[in-house]
Amino acid sequence: MITRFETYLRTHTSLSDEDIERIASAAMPRSLRRNELLLQQDQVCRYKTFIINGLLRTFGRVADGSEYILQFSPENSWALDAESYDRETPSVFNIAAVEQSELLLWNKADFDRLLTDIPELQALSRQLISRSNYSSRQRLFTALSATSEEKYEDFTRTFPHLLARLPLHLIAAYLGISLKTLTRIRHAQLHR
Amino acid sequence: MITRFETYLRTHTSLSDEDIERIASAAMPRSLRRNELLLQQDQVCRYKTFIINGLLRTFGRVADGSEYILQFSPENSWALDAESYDRETPSVFNIAAVEQSELLLWNKADFDRLLTDIPELQALSRQLISRSNYSSRQRLFTALSATSEEKYEDFTRTFPHLLARLPLHLIAAYLGISLKTLTRIRHAQLHR
Repeated sequence: MITRFETYLRTHTSLSDEDIERIASAAMPRSLRRNELLLQQDQVCRYKTFIINGLLRTFGRVADGSEYILQFSPENSWALDAESYDRETPSVFNIAAVEQSELLLWNKADFDRLLTDIPELQALSRQLISRSNYSSRQRLFTALSATSEEKYEDFTRTFPHLLARLPLHLIAAYLGISLKTLTRIRHAQLHR
Repeated sequence: MITRFETYLRTHTSLSDEDIERIASAAMPRSLRRNELLLQQDQVCRYKTFIINGLLRTFGRVADGSEYILQFSPENSWALDAESYDRETPSVFNIAAVEQSELLLWNKADFDRLLTDIPELQALSRQLISRSNYSSRQRLFTALSATSEEKYEDFTRTFPHLLARLPLHLIAAYLGISLKTLTRIRHAQLHR
């Protein structure tokens, strides 16, 4: 597990072996079964999480219990509720496993210390925050402006590797459309 | 104009008079008439912009020409397309004035130098990026999950001070609903 994370760091940074070793050794491994929660609404998000294997989803619920998905986090990416983590306030979102997943977790105090001591980790962290900002804007624009068909097409273009791994109701919950609408769109595509 | 910006910095940071003076003196004042563009799609966003007076909107257009608004930036806030600015790539969005506006602009080279030299400005900048991240997530969740009525109610709660300053078609373009739907919602509210 640690080896995969080290490979990720070597690919995305020019951190020294020593720093990589230090970052990796501060992590706690954790497994999640399918549908198991990593973060539950009203809890404080206490960990930075890196996904070694598997797939997580970050989602919120509305009053009637239905779920809307903000983000999918596959292997070699990170998941957290940044606002809850940064401010140490209860989260309004949940994070759960779509598939059996293997994770690395850092608690905030440990990760903050690493950020202070290792400027290049801080640079990576800022880069990730910026990218998340760019893609949130783009996604918001799509959510506001696109038809259901366009949303689905955008999804298949952006996440071709996730399509086969996701049950349809989770894709619908990510697009903010009903399962019925999604089924109709896919049916129409097949018959085109 | 500069005085207002200095007051903003004094309120939100504990920067020294000297640093505030240095940041302010690197800014270029600019006025925008109502509907005048600050950034046009396909241009590179070359400036960090602080709004002294007035109101800007950041928006994108879809193929049929209709406009969807990502953000309103009133006085005492900032506006830019972060992705275009950071990467120096053509923007997919536009920024225009909703009202006659007075702005301060910093070009990227100057602002980057200030960030390097003044750690507390960097801290403010990171804080603003984080906040923008939090509110994008919350807004995305509302866009995905809320009914048109809930979207409008959320808007009136979040931006009570903007309601009277915005023509209805711009509120509709921010909510991602049609002007007709918005008019119906407001009519129903008045008769409740």
